[in-house]
Amino acid sequence: MNNDNLKNLIKKQKSNYTLDQEFYVDDYIFNLDIKNIFSKQWVFVGHTSRIPKYGDFFLFNIGKESIIIIRDKDNKIYAHYNVCRHRGSHICLEESGNKKLLVCPYHAWSYNLDGSIKSARLMNDNFNKEEWSLNKCNLKIFEGLIFINLSDKPNDFNEFISPTKEFIKLHGLSNAKIAHRQMYPTNGNWKLTLDNFHECYHCQPAHPEYCKVHDKEYIIAYGAGSNTGPSSKKFDKILQNWNEKVKKMGHVTGEYSESEFNDYSRSAERTPLKEGMFTETKSGKPVSKLMGDFKEYDCGYTSVGTSPFNSLLMCNDFATLFTFIPVSSLHTQVELMWLVHKDAEEGKDYNLEEMTWMWDLTTIADKKIIENNQKGVLSKKYVPGPLSEMEKGLEKFKSWYLKHLEISIS
Amino acid sequence: MNNDNLKNLIKKQKSNYTLDQEFYVDDYIFNLDIKNIFSKQWVFVGHTSRIPKYGDFFLFNIGKESIIIIRDKDNKIYAHYNVCRHRGSHICLEESGNKKLLVCPYHAWSYNLDGSIKSARLMNDNFNKEEWSLNKCNLKIFEGLIFINLSDKPNDFNEFISPTKEFIKLHGLSNAKIAHRQMYPTNGNWKLTLDNFHECYHCQPAHPEYCKVHDKEYIIAYGAGSNTGPSSKKFDKILQNWNEKVKKMGHVTGEYSESEFNDYSRSAERTPLKEGMFTETKSGKPVSKLMGDFKEYDCGYTSVGTSPFNSLLMCNDFATLFTFIPVSSLHTQVELMWLVHKDAEEGKDYNLEEMTWMWDLTTIADKKIIENNQKGVLSKKYVPGPLSEMEKGLEKFKSWYLKHLEISIS
Amino acid sequence: MNNDNLKNLIKKQKSNYTLDQEFYVDDYIFNLDIKNIFSKQWVFVGHTSRIPKYGDFFLFNIGKESIIIIRDKDNKIYAHYNVCRHRGSHICLEESGNKKLLVCPYHAWSYNLDGSIKSARLMNDNFNKEEWSLNKCNLKIFEGLIFINLSDKPNDFNEFISPTKEFIKLHGLSNAKIAHRQMYPTNGNWKLTLDNFHECYHCQPAHPEYCKVHDKEYIIAYGAGSNTGPSSKKFDKILQNWNEKVKKMGHVTGEYSESEFNDYSRSAERTPLKEGMFTETKSGKPVSKLMGDFKEYDCGYTSVGTSPFNSLLMCNDFATLFTFIPVSSLHTQVELMWLVHKDAEEGKDYNLEEMTWMWDLTTIADKKIIENNQKGVLSKKYVPGPLSEMEKGLEKFKSWYLKHLEISIS
Repeated sequence: MNNDNLKNLIKKQKSNYTLDQEFYVDDYIFNLDIKNIFSKQWVFVGHTSRIPKYGDFFLFNIGKESIIIIRDKDNKIYAHYNVCRHRGSHICLEESGNKKLLVCPYHAWSYNLDGSIKSARLMNDNFNKEEWSLNKCNLKIFEGLIFINLSDKPNDFNEFISPTKEFIKLHGLSNAKIAHRQMYPTNGNWKLTLDNFHECYHCQPAHPEYCKVHDKEYIIAYGAGSNTGPSSKKFDKILQNWNEKVKKMGHVTGEYSESEFNDYSRSAERTPLKEGMFTETKSGKPVSKLMGDFKEYDCGYTSVGTSPFNSLLMCNDFATLFTFIPVSSLHTQVELMWLVHKDAEEGKDYNLEEMTWMWDLTTIADKKIIENNQKGVLSKKYVPGPLSEMEKGLEKFKSWYLKHLEISIS
Repeated sequence: MNNDNLKNLIKKQKSNYTLDQEFYVDDYIFNLDIKNIFSKQWVFVGHTSRIPKYGDFFLFNIGKESIIIIRDKDNKIYAHYNVCRHRGSHICLEESGNKKLLVCPYHAWSYNLDGSIKSARLMNDNFNKEEWSLNKCNLKIFEGLIFINLSDKPNDFNEFISPTKEFIKLHGLSNAKIAHRQMYPTNGNWKLTLDNFHECYHCQPAHPEYCKVHDKEYIIAYGAGSNTGPSSKKFDKILQNWNEKVKKMGHVTGEYSESEFNDYSRSAERTPLKEGMFTETKSGKPVSKLMGDFKEYDCGYTSVGTSPFNSLLMCNDFATLFTFIPVSSLHTQVELMWLVHKDAEEGKDYNLEEMTWMWDLTTIADKKIIENNQKGVLSKKYVPGPLSEMEKGLEKFKSWYLKHLEISIS
Repeated sequence: MNNDNLKNLIKKQKSNYTLDQEFYVDDYIFNLDIKNIFSKQWVFVGHTSRIPKYGDFFLFNIGKESIIIIRDKDNKIYAHYNVCRHRGSHICLEESGNKKLLVCPYHAWSYNLDGSIKSARLMNDNFNKEEWSLNKCNLKIFEGLIFINLSDKPNDFNEFISPTKEFIKLHGLSNAKIAHRQMYPTNGNWKLTLDNFHECYHCQPAHPEYCKVHDKEYIIAYGAGSNTGPSSKKFDKILQNWNEKVKKMGHVTGEYSESEFNDYSRSAERTPLKEGMFTETKSGKPVSKLMGDFKEYDCGYTSVGTSPFNSLLMCNDFATLFTFIPVSSLHTQVELMWLVHKDAEEGKDYNLEEMTWMWDLTTIADKKIIENNQKGVLSKKYVPGPLSEMEKGLEKFKSWYLKHLEISIS
């Protein structure tokens, strides 16, 4: 594979069909994906509540890279590459912990939490500390969400976050805390993994839990976001009624999607849960304290995609956050975080098992689905197949991806 | 490696010497082997008794490919690539089972057992079911043996099976059943694995069980088939006497080997077991019901090779079937099936341990031998070594292989 | 990567900085390292006491190669590639054992312990035994140390061993025996592994055991050999006094290092242990019988490097021997052997736990250090870092390596 082959291959892709095999298995394309797509997006990798105190840190690992996310004395949070500037050793060896000084375990070079060198023993006279700070990684906090960007020239964060801002703010994530985190390592290419997330055509056969808590008409028309399935007059009516009611309550309503191609692939919308459901649990009964601006349940569901690598699916009393990390051409790390109001207490105000029930079981099922999908896609007999009317979200993601890739190599 | 290098390398190979290292380790050559040799042969991968009922299926897996072998209502057996035509998912996830409809676990596209689509929800109007049947794999049944061929233009099956037909028919495999199946995954190139099977020079040092049940003179002269070792007047005499006796009984005798180079590498012959042995067990006593045309024991041994990837070694009362599947340049799957008369009952009519004793222990020993052979062949010091007079079968296989490979790249 | 790129890359390397990432991760460079550096050095891989009796053997394995080191009737020790000349099988399958004849387990070709063929059954008339001896590997014994050299034209052994001869002889290793052997498989490039061994800048933060038994001033000035750190007047004084005392005892003193670039990278020196220490143990008390020429303790420490792949660190009553084997670009095998006087008895004359304590714990720590170093060096953000005044030994090793590599590809 080289860029010329790839250009021709991109041209060959047909709309409303899945991609050719190469896009799901080839290492050359995977490396381009990382370099030109993943590394240029603002991706959230955690929540400030994971590192509440001075010196708290956690590592964000992706492939060969390890990033230290750490809180300094003044509550500022930094992201540094976990690479000592002396001989290159990892500095933090644990997944998370607390450090008031970043001391390399090899030769004890020490760095302040802002990345500047504190001390390096026995260096020559021409050693200039200033030149050997830790490599910084771009970091922004929005509503407690920690976004990083691996690019040297990151897009403007405010421009990036602007369209989804109000939808996120509504849920008061800056006053939230992580109730639970879970990893779902998945033996599938990141695009197969996201294809799965961009359509709800598989929800009916594969996700009984999801179908229990969401309306059948919603699943068809809105399962992977607005305009991702055939329109449903029934659901349009339900949505219209709900919008009217909720506007009166003063809550955000409506939806956002990109009107034309750009660097981003953002979306947001608010929709009602299935009738009678207060939140996304088996019983539908409230499961935790109301979050953010909510004074009472509007029984809505806020879906936000800030990039292909992150989704926020938020009820009135808890939020489920998704991070998809491409690891290698055949492997993707999927991380889920469940957020609740910062004052909610487990056992008293919320029940973890009830709250995580649906998305935990659904993500376990998706992991298996994606892995079986990848196995078949590796066959010499795999060729692009036709998409259904419920896979418009996948088609949208695919077009955005192909255009991005094409631009990046031309 | 490329085809030009390979052509020169093929020319460099000397007769009566083993192959150069590249043939046993190189991925480029391995891929050509799969494409041009394995994929063009009729290979048996199972026996109809494994899937006796409507809907019974098993998977035949090789490298990245998975094939569903399934029995339809009308008792017709089909082979389909295990790849959904929609998004490419594997359809059958278990090694074997029973399905009256092939439903993809991802989006519930369903296929009839003949591979045609039964249903696909919510497809566009221009979706034409007829175009999206499962990819068929060529399949033929002969005497209950399920042969598949991965080629798009397979050789004529009748032409292929014709010379070994009578030898196989004699044993009544169509009225047989599988008594036992066992896998012997072997960390060695498929050609090293078959080199081992094509000579009996190693039987004396490495296979005490084999040497217990076969005559010493037979092993020398016929251990890997007729004309694979130095001739033995003693054994010629034994064979001549046996042939006369057996002809009178009306049983098939004689032998077949390819008289000139062609697409196939077939062989067949009937020989007597060691004196006093009725069958291929430790004691030599009958171990199961007589099979096929046999009314009485003729104490013969029928060896059939339909291709390098299959062998049938058949006594009067049971048959041992071998399948050799190249998995990667350094890995081969070896499967053994023991067949008995379909009416034989375990414990009553046959004893599994006695019956499998020799070939189970011998194949375990061969697995180790081949793995140690592969380790040494990886050394920079390995060079082709000289063959003995008992390795003519290996030389024959090697010549056939090299010629086949040469033609396929010219 | 190719030789032209590599030449430019070599030119780019700056003195007193670590190497560019490629040198620590690239397979092309790794293969050159093996071919042009490791394979041209005399490396010791064991001690004669491991195979005291006729027929005793052990295997030395490196990557795809396996070498049989075996003692013949006349006490001569041979090294043969573990590859049968017939079909290439490994001949010895166990790590060590006793064989009076090397019989291939495959077809029973047998070889005398000097590698000549004893028997090969049923070969053609034109088979000439003389041509099919086992492939010999160069082998020399010095003071019981078994050195091998994988080159076809090895450097003269006497020339090689000459400068370190007296330092080694002093310790009477020819009258020694192995008290303990231990492997420390390390997930790091061999140069990262040796970088670690060529500086003691990390000893203070990472090796409390080492710092307990060695003088602080020694560590700074001599931790990785003479002239590897800043000079210490305090230690110079200690050394001078000790030299005077020890010369009177008639023991070797002084140091050796290469005065100009050559094929070798040898060093040797004798220094005093920390005051009050008799040997390199926690308590400093004698731990075994005096070795070699020692009639009384001179409390010295003899450090010898015969090549980058071997070090000998010797006290008056035991010796710790290091072998570093590059396995792949990201993996190195590290083997330690502890030698004591051949007449010393465990439990009575020496205590294994006390004797191995320091280097066992220190090597376990180094294994972790090197693995964390390798992880960081794989980051896209890794760039060569500046060396301290205590890393002059690393710089010396690096220069020697780069020059060697440059010559080998020009």
